[in-house]
Amino acid sequence: MIVLFTDFGGDGLYVGQVKAVLARAAPALTVIDLLHHAPRFDITASAHLLAALYRQFAPGSVFFAVMDPGVGGARDAVAMMADGYYFVGPDNGLLAVVAARAETMRVWRIAWRPEKLSNSFHGRDLFAPIAAWIAAGRFPADKLEQIDSLTVQASGEDLARIIYIDHYGNCLTGLRAASFPDASSLRVPSETVCRARTFSEVGPGVAFWYENSLGLVEIAVNRGSAAQCLGLHIGDEVLVA
Amino acid sequence: MIVLFTDFGGDGLYVGQVKAVLARAAPALTVIDLLHHAPRFDITASAHLLAALYRQFAPGSVFFAVMDPGVGGARDAVAMMADGYYFVGPDNGLLAVVAARAETMRVWRIAWRPEKLSNSFHGRDLFAPIAAWIAAGRFPADKLEQIDSLTVQASGEDLARIIYIDHYGNCLTGLRAASFPDASSLRVPSETVCRARTFSEVGPGVAFWYENSLGLVEIAVNRGSAAQCLGLHIGDEVLVA
Amino acid sequence: MIVLFTDFGGDGLYVGQVKAVLARAAPALTVIDLLHHAPRFDITASAHLLAALYRQFAPGSVFFAVMDPGVGGARDAVAMMADGYYFVGPDNGLLAVVAARAETMRVWRIAWRPEKLSNSFHGRDLFAPIAAWIAAGRFPADKLEQIDSLTVQASGEDLARIIYIDHYGNCLTGLRAASFPDASSLRVPSETVCRARTFSEVGPGVAFWYENSLGLVEIAVNRGSAAQCLGLHIGDEVLVA
Repeated sequence: MIVLFTDFGGDGLYVGQVKAVLARAAPALTVIDLLHHAPRFDITASAHLLAALYRQFAPGSVFFAVMDPGVGGARDAVAMMADGYYFVGPDNGLLAVVAARAETMRVWRIAWRPEKLSNSFHGRDLFAPIAAWIAAGRFPADKLEQIDSLTVQASGEDLARIIYIDHYGNCLTGLRAASFPDASSLRVPSETVCRARTFSEVGPGVAFWYENSLGLVEIAVNRGSAAQCLGLHIGDEVLVA
Repeated sequence: MIVLFTDFGGDGLYVGQVKAVLARAAPALTVIDLLHHAPRFDITASAHLLAALYRQFAPGSVFFAVMDPGVGGARDAVAMMADGYYFVGPDNGLLAVVAARAETMRVWRIAWRPEKLSNSFHGRDLFAPIAAWIAAGRFPADKLEQIDSLTVQASGEDLARIIYIDHYGNCLTGLRAASFPDASSLRVPSETVCRARTFSEVGPGVAFWYENSLGLVEIAVNRGSAAQCLGLHIGDEVLVA
Repeated sequence: MIVLFTDFGGDGLYVGQVKAVLARAAPALTVIDLLHHAPRFDITASAHLLAALYRQFAPGSVFFAVMDPGVGGARDAVAMMADGYYFVGPDNGLLAVVAARAETMRVWRIAWRPEKLSNSFHGRDLFAPIAAWIAAGRFPADKLEQIDSLTVQASGEDLARIIYIDHYGNCLTGLRAASFPDASSLRVPSETVCRARTFSEVGPGVAFWYENSLGLVEIAVNRGSAAQCLGLHIGDEVLVA
C-alpha cells in the first residue's frame, strides 16, 4: 500500500500525474489519498501531523510524503525506513519528527535520476517511481545510497501549536493526549477551554478539548467551528492553563 | 462495491483513514467516493439526497453513510438492508428516508465494539470494518443484533426544500419530478422559475427548473449559478407556483 | 487506464456516479482523476490544458474529457483516437487542440443511445460506458460511426493566455516553453517577469516564469501566489516583453 501525504491540493492536476506514474510502475498497488492539504509552507506542523497519522496504516506501508517548496534546489531526496514503515520525499524536515521518534531507522539518499527530470515536479519524476518500487517489493537498492541520518532534523517532542484545521473547523495540536494531564485546561490565545470526552458531552456552541482519534489534543466546538469561534490559525500557540 | 457518503470533506484526513481500514479488511474491494460534502448539520437534507442517489448503483452495493455529529453519545450504530442495498452508519435519521421508502427492509444494531474504539471517529473504527465485511460477502451476523426498525424515523414523502447545491451552483430539491405537474412553475423565496427540459433550452443567465439526472426537481441557471443568482441556500423552501 | 478530465468539481456527486458506471462496465479498470476543476465555461483554456497533459500518460489510455455546458442540445458526442490515445466527450472544442496537433487521428460520432439517457448528465449515461468499453479493449464499433473530423475545430498554435491557476496560485499559460525564446521576459497585464529555472533560484516573494513540468510557460512566485501577487485570472493575455 502506498499512502499520499502532500500539499498538492485535492483538485488533482498534480495528484493524477503522480498516480499515473505509480500505476505504470506498480499496477496492482493500492494507493490511498491521506492528505493533499498538508499545511503549506509550514513544514514543522506537517511533520507533526504525519508523525501522528502514519501508525494508522499497516506496517510496510510506503508514504509518499511530498511538500517540496525547495524543489530544484540543494535539498536532498531521501527514502527512509522507520519502525517498519517507509517514507519517500524531500529531506527538508517533513520526515524529521517521524525520524526523531523512531526506535529503528535507516535513511537513504536517492542517487538515481530519471532520464527526464523536471525542475519543479520531483514528486512525479523522482519520488513516485521510488515509492512504487518499494511498495511493490522491489527495493531499488542500486538507486539509493545509505546515509547516517537526515540532514534536516527536528525534535521528537510534542509541539504546543495548532498543526491542522479540519473541514469542520476542529483544531488539531501537536500535543499527544496520553502524556497530557487529564484535569488540565488548555489556553488558546483568546480563551481557556476545558476537557470533554467527546462532542455530545457539551452543549451546542461550547468549546472544549479532547483526545482525538489520533491521540492528539484537539480543540473543538460542538456543532460549530472552533477555528472560527476562537479565531484560531495553524501555528497558533496553545498552553496548559 | 462500497460507496462512501459522508460529510468528512474531500480533503482526505478522515477519508484516507477509512479507506486504509477498508483496504485491510477487504483488499479487493472497489471503493467509490460518492459524496464527502453531504450538507453538514442538515441530516434531513442529506437523508433525501442519499435516497435519491443510491439506486444509481448496483444492487448489493454497501453504502458507508456517515454524518455523525452525535458520535460518542447515545445514538445507535446500525446496518440496514433496503431493497437489496446495504447501509452502515449512525441511527440519527440519515438512513430514515431510504428506510421509509423501501419495500423490503431489515435493520441490525451493531453490537460489536472493536478493541480500540475512539470517541470521535466511529466511521473509521466501527462502521468501516462492518461495511467492509458485508461488501466482501462475509456478513458479520455474530456482531449484529436484528432490531425491528430504526430509532430515528422520517417520512418518505418528498421534501419541498433545497437539499444540495452543487459545484456549478445548481440547487437540487427533495422533490421527485415524476410526481410533479409538468406545467408547474416553482417559487423560490426570491422568484418564480419555469420548467425547461435542459440547460441549452434557455438563454444564458436564465433561471429554470428541470428534472435532473437523479429524477429530482433542480433549479439551475444556464451558464450561471442558480444559488448565487437567486440567493438560495440549503434548507430554503420551494413551492409550486 | 481511464483518465478523468472534467469540470465536475472534486466534491464527488457527479464523479462518483461516473465511477460507478465505469466499475460496472469494466471492473478491473484503473481510473485516475486527472482534473475535475477544468476552467468552467472556458473551453479553449481547457482544450489547451488537456493537450499539454495527456502525453504524461501511457499510450492507449482513454480520456473521459467532459465539460458539457451544451448537454441535451445539438452538439455531437464523439470518440477520438489521436496518436494512440483515446478521448471520449462532447464535440464542443474541448478535444480540438489535441486534434489539431495530432499526426494520426480518427473520429467517431457516438450513434448509440442508452435505454435511459438523462438530459443533463451524458457524462454518466453516454460517455462513461463508451470510455469503459474502449479502455477494457472492447472497442464498440457497432455503436460508433466514423466521421471525417470534429465539428468544432481549433488551431493547434500556442495560446498566449493564462489557461489554469493551480492550488499554489501558479499561473499556467498555453505557451509551450520549447518554442519560446530563452532570454525573453514575459509581460502580464500588471508587470514584466523574467525567466528562472525553478522556484529556489529566486528570492521569496519574487515573480518569475519558468518551463513547468508539462513543458508550458508558467508564471510563479517563490513561496507566494502569482495569481494573487500579480492579480492574474484565467483568460488573461501574456506577451513576450
